[in-house]
Amino acid sequence: MKLSDASALVEGALREIELPAGELNGLYEPISYGMNAGGKRLRPGLLLMTAEAFGGDKATEGAMPAAVGMEMFHNFTLLHDDVMDNSAMRRNRPTVQAKWDVNTAILSGDTMLTLATQKMMTVPDALLREVLDIFNAMAIKVYEGQRLDMDFETRNDVTTQDYLEMIGAKTGALLGASARIGALLGGADSKAAAQMERFGYLLGLAFQIQDDWLDVYGDSTTFGKPIGGDINNGKKSFLLLTALESGTPEATALKAAMEMAPGDTKIKTVTRIYDKLNLNEKVRKAVSHYSSEALTALKKSGLAEEAREPFRALIDKLTGRKR
Amino acid sequence: MKLSDASALVEGALREIELPAGELNGLYEPISYGMNAGGKRLRPGLLLMTAEAFGGDKATEGAMPAAVGMEMFHNFTLLHDDVMDNSAMRRNRPTVQAKWDVNTAILSGDTMLTLATQKMMTVPDALLREVLDIFNAMAIKVYEGQRLDMDFETRNDVTTQDYLEMIGAKTGALLGASARIGALLGGADSKAAAQMERFGYLLGLAFQIQDDWLDVYGDSTTFGKPIGGDINNGKKSFLLLTALESGTPEATALKAAMEMAPGDTKIKTVTRIYDKLNLNEKVRKAVSHYSSEALTALKKSGLAEEAREPFRALIDKLTGRKR
Repeated sequence: MKLSDASALVEGALREIELPAGELNGLYEPISYGMNAGGKRLRPGLLLMTAEAFGGDKATEGAMPAAVGMEMFHNFTLLHDDVMDNSAMRRNRPTVQAKWDVNTAILSGDTMLTLATQKMMTVPDALLREVLDIFNAMAIKVYEGQRLDMDFETRNDVTTQDYLEMIGAKTGALLGASARIGALLGGADSKAAAQMERFGYLLGLAFQIQDDWLDVYGDSTTFGKPIGGDINNGKKSFLLLTALESGTPEATALKAAMEMAPGDTKIKTVTRIYDKLNLNEKVRKAVSHYSSEALTALKKSGLAEEAREPFRALIDKLTGRKR
Repeated sequence: MKLSDASALVEGALREIELPAGELNGLYEPISYGMNAGGKRLRPGLLLMTAEAFGGDKATEGAMPAAVGMEMFHNFTLLHDDVMDNSAMRRNRPTVQAKWDVNTAILSGDTMLTLATQKMMTVPDALLREVLDIFNAMAIKVYEGQRLDMDFETRNDVTTQDYLEMIGAKTGALLGASARIGALLGGADSKAAAQMERFGYLLGLAFQIQDDWLDVYGDSTTFGKPIGGDINNGKKSFLLLTALESGTPEATALKAAMEMAPGDTKIKTVTRIYDKLNLNEKVRKAVSHYSSEALTALKKSGLAEEAREPFRALIDKLTGRKR
């Protein structure tokens, strides 16, 4: 099953979620709002794709509540992240904290975490403990990743290694857990499921590095955000850290450029330094490396050639590779 | 087992919790800080007491991680409530949001919710689904109660019935779930466990109404907070709502008095109106009513006379009844 097909199924299931109304609208309306923001539905989509690859149509159907739970978890983190980052907009709409208030984003977010856990609990008894253990361990990783991300803002000693650890926790863990839980629900054994987790984790790394690249070299229309946002915000992206670690005169120039006031001149200056350092190629290489590692894990999962095809297509789609 | 003995056991177990250190101190230190604030340890204490009453010493030991999980959940709600209420102090120490910042209180609080769930998952496989279902349903109730509590601040149509629903969700649900899970871990059947949940829930109502009473008629030293705080903050307490519903001329006077600027004069004026309405007696009656209902549920649990004694003592302790 392609991601687009899986995502369409997820959208359908999300539309059917029923939450209490009336007196408790103040708690549940922001949850519906957060869940209806659209997006790629990458995490639940991957969960469904994996369930289908190992278990066919029936497994896909049975895995739907868990897929919804994974999307609910992801959206809980978005509600709280938007408070922590003081973000007013997300996907062209006001964030929950902007449309309602900070307290609503906190409390409705908490509720989404518990609702997500309840959704994960729809798995069969025989898998209940294993699935919840994966889910909870993933959640802890995501919090740790968010903590590191916040700490990076004020640290001057962040390395690309630190960065990879952070995105591995914040993005990789969620994709890894989605693929692993999907595999288990599709009937995969623990070993195959662990390889699919590795696939998801590495896919997450490749995807996040690609996202950092798009912020500099992408097209603002397809990227969905203005180009150069990371440069203007001083974000410790893969590009910035790689450049700073190059030990070249350009690294010194870059440090100075990053002190400039946000604006087009800053973006242009930094991009020119990235160009000189041939960062474009270095980043493509890193994305390629993690994509290829992901493919190795995918193969080790034991899935047949044909069943692996949608996952290969997913890598290409997320890393912008032409087919 | 008396509450004080159970609480001492809980304190011991809390001291032994090991959390990751080093780079992730920013996430885990606030959790240790929050958990080490002391207090009655009422919820985990009740869980242990119930486990012991049904299953003896061995059950108590096995129930300890779940008891710790319940206290961890409670403390997660305190971290987030303190953000939502913008509270700087709790139990004579700065709150996490005051000592660190709002973002830390949100993120470390999220982490505590998942850690609490992990602790609850230490129960035997045969009870895993039932215990987690109780735990998650309780969590949803607590969020709903907090939402109602926040909404009450700006509503002018809150009734004592609304109030009871709110404290039932915010306080009753946690005590109820603690008693029910403790009973299950002690080997009680589902019916007996449900009666213990009812006991805990009603105990929570009695305890919360008593707390509202202490805010007006208590002794600030033993109460631990200055007297009249609810009056000054305009809190929709059981006393205020009961007085407003009395349909007397005093109710009209009370509405005016509640508009006064916070201070000793306001506290004195409102207290005098409460005195005239004989609220002291009305509140004692309500506390007595819920205590007696709690005793009925306790009896229906099937526990022997002797095993019920510590729970009777707990009611007396929490409702200030002399023995």
